[in-house]
Amino acid sequence: MADLILNTFNWVPEIVRGFVRDLRVRWALEEAALPYRVASVPFDDRGAAHLAHQPFGQVPWLTDGDLSIFETGAILLHLGNLSPKLIPSDPRGRVEATQWLFAALNSVEMASLPWSLSKFMGHPSGTAAAKSIDDFLKLRLKHLEPVLAGREWLAGSFSAADILMSDVLRVVDGFGGLADNPACRDYVARATARPAFIKARADQIAHFAAADAARGA
Amino acid sequence: MADLILNTFNWVPEIVRGFVRDLRVRWALEEAALPYRVASVPFDDRGAAHLAHQPFGQVPWLTDGDLSIFETGAILLHLGNLSPKLIPSDPRGRVEATQWLFAALNSVEMASLPWSLSKFMGHPSGTAAAKSIDDFLKLRLKHLEPVLAGREWLAGSFSAADILMSDVLRVVDGFGGLADNPACRDYVARATARPAFIKARADQIAHFAAADAARGA
Repeated sequence: MADLILNTFNWVPEIVRGFVRDLRVRWALEEAALPYRVASVPFDDRGAAHLAHQPFGQVPWLTDGDLSIFETGAILLHLGNLSPKLIPSDPRGRVEATQWLFAALNSVEMASLPWSLSKFMGHPSGTAAAKSIDDFLKLRLKHLEPVLAGREWLAGSFSAADILMSDVLRVVDGFGGLADNPACRDYVARATARPAFIKARADQIAHFAAADAARGA
Repeated sequence: MADLILNTFNWVPEIVRGFVRDLRVRWALEEAALPYRVASVPFDDRGAAHLAHQPFGQVPWLTDGDLSIFETGAILLHLGNLSPKLIPSDPRGRVEATQWLFAALNSVEMASLPWSLSKFMGHPSGTAAAKSIDDFLKLRLKHLEPVLAGREWLAGSFSAADILMSDVLRVVDGFGGLADNPACRDYVARATARPAFIKARADQIAHFAAADAARGA
């Protein structure tokens, strides 16, 4: 197997540590017990070399030999080809995990990210825009709640879909957005109690903290 | 090959015809020249039978024999296994198309959908929330513009990634949001001039219009 290299920033502000998206890839790599190393690119200067791998100037991207892959969803599907612990290898299991992986990103995070950003930035809550953002997230959670009340993991056994869905919901939970959704909250607690998540989160925080000294922070 | 059945609503209000997400699947099926038929579920009453296939109460979903798949991204990847016209079969081409397919949904649509909804609902533009939504979309388009200025299609030849990205940008263009992004605008024009898009859009509009009489509209 070629070397797997996870590329992330060399540093980020403390407030976002533990939430940078390389966590999703670290978590997947730990679940699958795939060997990998971490490489860094400057947070402050996102030049042409960065954009050639990640055209939106974000992180992470993964290199696997001479393949370079961006978008956490695409990376997790790629890793799913290397380990059935991430994406089951039978056709039905593959479809189940893949559709829920997309649901995390395109049905739930599409509603939760604007909501979380709005909370993070402290936008006033009384406006029509705020209500619309709030209603959108609540509608998605209303549908997700009975699904998660009826099963431990989204696609039979734990899969890459649960990495993405629980990480998306974890942010909502952090802003108190799961108060009316106990099954969603329990699911986040279940997922984030996994050793692979705990290690991935600690590794990310240590990676960014190690750069503080170099920056004189 | 088993029967492919695209499941969509039996009717939608006229204003959204031509924009319902079954269009993305119709377009892919037409590009790949895969035989399929269309089945309908009630728009007004989304019961347990609907939620069993699409847990968010939306459309479309695809059935392929005894497999049932929701999320347009997952459906297009599944169809990509049936036709290299949608997802190339070589490893590098597959990675390229897959990462851009996710980018359409999770990097660009995540910014464009809140923006489009806000325009559609006529929210006031002077608020902090509106500015934040606006800035988020502009940042994504700023990065996408040089990519699309330098290539005809996202992943070498036309792929499922272009179906999703151009359909996402088409909505933005409809609200005048690509005024400063000529390469994005040209890309939408190029994609929507394809016979498969034209047929898919016309078929969707005809499908929903046929139900008007039954509803006494």
